Amino acid sequence: MSKKVLIVGGVAGGAGTAARLRRMDETAEIIVFERGGYISFANCGLPYYISGVIRKRDRLLVQTKEAMEARFNIDIRLHSEVTAILRDTREVEVNSGDQIYRESYDYLVLAPGAAPIVPPIPGIERAGIYTLRNMVDVDRLKALVTQRRTGRVVIIGGGAIGIEMAENLKLVGSDVTIVEAAAQILGPLDEDMTKLVGKTLLDNGIKIILNDGVKSFTGQENIEVVLNSGKSVEADFVILAIGVKPENKLAREAGLALGERGGIKVDDYLCTSDPYIYALGDVIEVRDIVTDQQALISLAGPANKQARIVADNIAGRKVKFKGSQGTSIIKVFDLTAASTGNNEKTLKLNGIPYVKSYTISPSHAAYYPGAIPIIVKIMFSPEGGTLYGAQIVGKVGVDKRIDVLATAIRMGLTVFDLEELELAYAPPYSSAKDPVNIAGFTAANILKGDVRVMHWDELDSLAKDSYILLDVRMDKEYQQGHVDGALHIPLDSLRERLNELPRDKQIIVHCKTGLRSYIANRILMQNGFNAANLSGGYDLYQVLQY
Amino acid sequence: MSKKVLIVGGVAGGAGTAARLRRMDETAEIIVFERGGYISFANCGLPYYISGVIRKRDRLLVQTKEAMEARFNIDIRLHSEVTAILRDTREVEVNSGDQIYRESYDYLVLAPGAAPIVPPIPGIERAGIYTLRNMVDVDRLKALVTQRRTGRVVIIGGGAIGIEMAENLKLVGSDVTIVEAAAQILGPLDEDMTKLVGKTLLDNGIKIILNDGVKSFTGQENIEVVLNSGKSVEADFVILAIGVKPENKLAREAGLALGERGGIKVDDYLCTSDPYIYALGDVIEVRDIVTDQQALISLAGPANKQARIVADNIAGRKVKFKGSQGTSIIKVFDLTAASTGNNEKTLKLNGIPYVKSYTISPSHAAYYPGAIPIIVKIMFSPEGGTLYGAQIVGKVGVDKRIDVLATAIRMGLTVFDLEELELAYAPPYSSAKDPVNIAGFTAANILKGDVRVMHWDELDSLAKDSYILLDVRMDKEYQQGHVDGALHIPLDSLRERLNELPRDKQIIVHCKTGLRSYIANRILMQNGFNAANLSGGYDLYQVLQY
Ligand SMILES: Cc1cc2nc3c(=O)[nH]c(=O)nc-3n(C[C@H](O)[C@H](O)[C@H](O)COP(=O)(O)OP(=O)(O)OC[C@H]3O[C@@H](n4cnc5c(N)ncnc54)[C@H](O)[C@@H]3O)c2cc1C
Ligand SMILES: Cc1cc2nc3c(=O)[nH]c(=O)nc-3n(C[C@H](O)[C@H](O)[C@H](O)COP(=O)(O)OP(=O)(O)OC[C@H]3O[C@@H](n4cnc5c(N)ncnc54)[C@H](O)[C@@H]3O)c2cc1C
Ligand SMILES: CC(C)(COP(=O)(O)OP(=O)(O)OC[C@H]1O[C@@H](n2cnc3c(N)ncnc32)[C@H](O)[C@@H]1OP(=O)(O)O)[C@@H](O)C(=O)NCCC(=O)NCCS
Ligand SMILES: CC(C)(COP(=O)(O)OP(=O)(O)OC[C@H]1O[C@@H](n2cnc3c(N)ncnc32)[C@H](O)[C@@H]1OP(=O)(O)O)[C@@H](O)C(=O)NCCC(=O)NCCS
Repeated sequence: MSKKVLIVGGVAGGAGTAARLRRMDETAEIIVFERGGYISFANCGLPYYISGVIRKRDRLLVQTKEAMEARFNIDIRLHSEVTAILRDTREVEVNSGDQIYRESYDYLVLAPGAAPIVPPIPGIERAGIYTLRNMVDVDRLKALVTQRRTGRVVIIGGGAIGIEMAENLKLVGSDVTIVEAAAQILGPLDEDMTKLVGKTLLDNGIKIILNDGVKSFTGQENIEVVLNSGKSVEADFVILAIGVKPENKLAREAGLALGERGGIKVDDYLCTSDPYIYALGDVIEVRDIVTDQQALISLAGPANKQARIVADNIAGRKVKFKGSQGTSIIKVFDLTAASTGNNEKTLKLNGIPYVKSYTISPSHAAYYPGAIPIIVKIMFSPEGGTLYGAQIVGKVGVDKRIDVLATAIRMGLTVFDLEELELAYAPPYSSAKDPVNIAGFTAANILKGDVRVMHWDELDSLAKDSYILLDVRMDKEYQQGHVDGALHIPLDSLRERLNELPRDKQIIVHCKTGLRSYIANRILMQNGFNAANLSGGYDLYQVLQY
Repeated sequence: MSKKVLIVGGVAGGAGTAARLRRMDETAEIIVFERGGYISFANCGLPYYISGVIRKRDRLLVQTKEAMEARFNIDIRLHSEVTAILRDTREVEVNSGDQIYRESYDYLVLAPGAAPIVPPIPGIERAGIYTLRNMVDVDRLKALVTQRRTGRVVIIGGGAIGIEMAENLKLVGSDVTIVEAAAQILGPLDEDMTKLVGKTLLDNGIKIILNDGVKSFTGQENIEVVLNSGKSVEADFVILAIGVKPENKLAREAGLALGERGGIKVDDYLCTSDPYIYALGDVIEVRDIVTDQQALISLAGPANKQARIVADNIAGRKVKFKGSQGTSIIKVFDLTAASTGNNEKTLKLNGIPYVKSYTISPSHAAYYPGAIPIIVKIMFSPEGGTLYGAQIVGKVGVDKRIDVLATAIRMGLTVFDLEELELAYAPPYSSAKDPVNIAGFTAANILKGDVRVMHWDELDSLAKDSYILLDVRMDKEYQQGHVDGALHIPLDSLRERLNELPRDKQIIVHCKTGLRSYIANRILMQNGFNAANLSGGYDLYQVLQY
């Protein structure tokens, strides 16, 4: 007998499940309920449509009800909100606007996504405050752009969506201010790695206010965004982009188990606490493959992959979802910032000991035109060198390296494995030692004890007279700027000038990126000095000043 | 007591070994012998200097004798050819032009590279026939460009160096013809995947003659390149780029074990048959990690990685080189072609059974501007799905995907692992299902028996009346061009028109890329038809016609 499968939500998770399920099972009866007027729209493209980078609205509609029904023999019901799950009778209640009815199921799939968080800030209900999640939202914002009513915009929240909106509104001429309550923008990265992102936003005329939350929205015609600090910013309109929370109402009211973070709890097969109900996408909690803890990961890649797995399990195959690592990437004008696996914040929170290393390498062979440095930060286990996380910021080739590192983390590789990777090299694409190899070499050198790594933020905690800072760059580089109080001996004369160095103090060496200072470290260590290498060098030091 | 280490060859393998060895051992006495006038030049950049893409000659000199000596406390002897190894006394004989002398060693490192193959073709010794390997070669060719003597050029050999030279000479206005004795250019790829490369060369005005070798070079002022077919091509000069052979003379004369292909035999630690002599780079034979056979791999990435390993082993660490996979990439005007692991030719030669799959996916989200299809070909084991090889051709994002696949092959991953990779997605960079995921899905579907894969070149071997060809593209696509004799039923009406299909014949389905025909296959299979999917679809069919 053919199965009857109901799917709540018709976008990444829902439509994806429907398509795969049909491929696996021609006979299943499949009904998709979508509360909105569209299925399968490109959420991730919305900000780019607002600016016109994506020119046609149609392009956002990856699939339509009609086309999907024709291709997949699926019953798609738009403007149909599932309002309750009657688990005993295996039915759902549907509100289609003109009627409320019940529909029975053999299997139910929950893919309702997540909703923008709208905190109870005084004035939040007033006109001119927008969120961005779906086609209705985007049409509203696009209308403002078309009507040229996008003068001054305040974006609350400096996460990916906030930053993408900032860029795209800047492109249409808005005066944009980002207000972020935390000490940093772009949460998936650590603060250090967000510095260049912040600088890029500033360089492109976007204002950023950190460490300040919104107290209230007041004002008459325009909106006055009053901050906790007392500051206030005028806006023609406001975009609220402080994050999303799982659309868990249906599940909660039906008594399905939820996790601590409010996401639906699922097992390895993406089945909820009810064996006839599966769930996927932004609404579930997943296993973080690094920490083994439950996490909320609101990304389209995992949602799409989960869709295949849910469909397979309903079709009678046993397929596991092994967990997620939150690989994410963002374009910020001409910069790219990406991360995968755990950042330092998460590792600390979970009490996981780690070592970190920064390397700065040209995006491709330095002698071929267009090579631009990228900053690679990796975190790994002090024992075996297992990779925990990676973050990369740069202008070219960032996406490539994060994908290699994401693959490495997924497969449990170590920094020693990175040393061996045989990546594609020709001058326009990379170097004979790819930045990923370099990250691996450097980390391996640390773990093997060939060099001691030190970080700029650790200097503060050292007794001032316990160490000296040694700058081994060339004279010209030193003259162009250096850290106060650093002793300067160019690497190439270090061997002759060892007698100028104290034997009773730690010698903390830096160069521009960490490469030459590493060579200096090897010289010093083998000559009996107590040396350490400042990871990321003066380049990182400068970045940290932004 | 400090070790005395002599290194023969001062470029990728030799200089790399010297640098790492110094870092590992401050006290070793290190002498590098380089027969030419330069160490550490960028071999891979040479073609780009000829055209001026790399503008300054200096840029090619990654390191110089003076700078390297200063930094690494190494004795570098230019214009010094090592002419013999006296293994009994652990000495080498050196010819420095003005004198011949001996130098003793504790360890000897051989990194003499490979030499362009110069076959004994009649007339080969005449003026105007050039090879490209080092600075002397490049200076010679650059002089021709500067003197505008680059009218008509014939390049013998359609490998990477030949093609790079063709592009760069075209850029300076030459009339370029490539002559290739084999049936295809760019040997690391299979013929099918070279078709687009060939087309790109043709589109850029470069002529290609395949399946034809050179019989003789004759002519008076200009060179007449006479081919085996009887054809002849006039040239102002000729570039010979038919491959390289290991510089094994020293090793052979010293009685070191050589492999079947003429490379020096080394063990896992890159030690030759003499425990005091190590060898690396283009001169050695390495284990192909896929076939487990010995191979000659002339690439800078492996040479640089081997350098670290040789240095470590001499410094007293035990480090293994686990083998190579020949990951390579080439820019051909606006196209990129890349490969890693084994191609079909090698798999066949080694009698390794494999399955192959072609997928064509947009370089990034189709709805974001600039997305361009890339063709991904993978080969994998019929049993467990272990990846054997991958080849990618396209305009954007090729290098990224080949690096992920190179990592996968390196680590022994399967196509099922590719399904799970959590790669970075935002619209400017990729799709929620990255092309690598798609390659994984498609391959996994084949192995799970969810679809039967068929290839265009297999059609010829089928009895004409045993199958029908079904084209499930839309009307418009079909009208714009289709395969002769194909039955046309658009996918979206397939379910209603099943009765038009024969049940006693195999139904071989194609669409544009393989995606819609895969869906058609699922419909057909579940309705009891004997169906198969034409991998790569009409897009690949068209590419194969070039
Ligand atoms: C502006 C923006 C940019 C983004 N950029 C990226 C990016 O670059 N990369 C990335 O990986 N991810 C990005 N994301 C996140 C990505 O879009 C989501 O992770 C993904 O869409 C989640 O899929 P889902 O199916 O779980 O939820 P959704 O795609 O949100 O779909 C859920 C659907 O369910 C419907 N629904 C909810 N409740 C009900 C109900 N009771 N009855 C009927 N229908 C219901 C909703 O109307 C909605 O259409 C972005 C998201 C946004 C909003
Ligand atoms: C034009 C060109 C483009 C290339 N492009 C790429 C590319 O894009 N990607 C890639 O991965 N690889 C590329 N390669 C290949 C790469 O350059 C080689 O694989 C790499 O340089 C090998 O390093 P090696 O140290 O073994 O040999 P080499 O770099 O060739 O160095 C060997 C040195 O040894 C010296 N020598 C030889 N015999 C003696 C002796 N008896 N005494 C003293 N000295 C001696 C030689 O003069 C030479 O300088 C390219 C090569 C060329 C020529
Ligand atoms: C439109 C949508 C319903 C399509 O779902 P889908 O059919 O599963 O996905 P795709 O069109 O990418 O096709 C993938 C399928 O084709 C197969 N395929 C792709 N290319 C192929 C090729 N060249 N040859 C053979 N098969 C191919 C894949 O294997 C996969 O099938 P499988 O899952 O059965 O293995 C769904 O992706 C969607 O709703 N997307 C928009 C919403 C969204 O994701 N938003 C967030 C990102 S902006
Ligand atoms: C110039 C040359 C001698 C340099 O050799 P090298 O010093 O080993 O190589 P690099 O300059 O890339 O430096 C790499 C070293 O710096 C370290 N390093 C790089 N970036 C670092 C950073 N940011 N922090 C700390 N260490 C870093 C690496 O770990 C590595 O050291 P290790 O091998 O001891 O682990 C050699 O690369 C060469 O001859 N190149 C030109 C020839 C050639 O390769 N041709 C073919 C390609 S065109």
